[in-house]
Amino acid sequence: MHGLHLIAELYDCRCAERLLADAQTLQDLCLAACTAAGLTPVGFVFHQFDGALGPAGATGAVILAESHLAVHTWPEHGAVTLDLYVCNFSHNNTIAARAAARRLLAGFAPGRIVERELERGLYTLAAAGDGD
Amino acid sequence: MHGLHLIAELYDCRCAERLLADAQTLQDLCLAACTAAGLTPVGFVFHQFDGALGPAGATGAVILAESHLAVHTWPEHGAVTLDLYVCNFSHNNTIAARAAARRLLAGFAPGRIVERELERGLYTLAAAGDGD
Repeated sequence: MHGLHLIAELYDCRCAERLLADAQTLQDLCLAACTAAGLTPVGFVFHQFDGALGPAGATGAVILAESHLAVHTWPEHGAVTLDLYVCNFSHNNTIAARAAARRLLAGFAPGRIVERELERGLYTLAAAGDGD
Repeated sequence: MHGLHLIAELYDCRCAERLLADAQTLQDLCLAACTAAGLTPVGFVFHQFDGALGPAGATGAVILAESHLAVHTWPEHGAVTLDLYVCNFSHNNTIAARAAARRLLAGFAPGRIVERELERGLYTLAAAGDGD
């Protein structure tokens, strides 16, 4: 369970509004970003929020052999939250996670980003000393 | 998008092994914990990992009107990672998130927990001053 969790809030996204408003378009980007980076989706779920005037944002998750990606959009604010957690159980997926994140950021084209990184499973690492 | 992200790694879980090994049992707990706490699932996806000797852990996500829950299990280590992010867009979901987390922890019964909390969407809060 030791691994890397990339956490980001994206603001002033300059992508097509459809990417923030439409669940299918968001899903396509998320799956493509994961697979292109060498991560392994084993399932996904996306939900379309509808407002009085049409699509009103989307939310979704891709579960990975390596852990998960979760994404939420606020089209009215041009904003997105991203969570990408990859465990390094069988091998180190850090490079793949960073590649997937880069692809997602390229898609959303945010004007401003607040990024954080968490190391997950520290106790396992300390206890086992083997990086899983 | 302003909200609370509860992050936990659970070790030495004393629950029935089935809860860590079986995706359906894990799914049932996750959905029950969210709904009992007043959160609103809008979709979910869970995946069963199978090993040579049978079920080998599970991974899943519940997407919520309020954001998401993601869970991964390592039965061989008695370990679980939890992520529960609730945004406070329409109202403050902090109490509901803590209630759902308590229910999940009661289910897994970990002997040791590493917990962290992140405040999400800080820039939105600062820019808008209205807590969304």
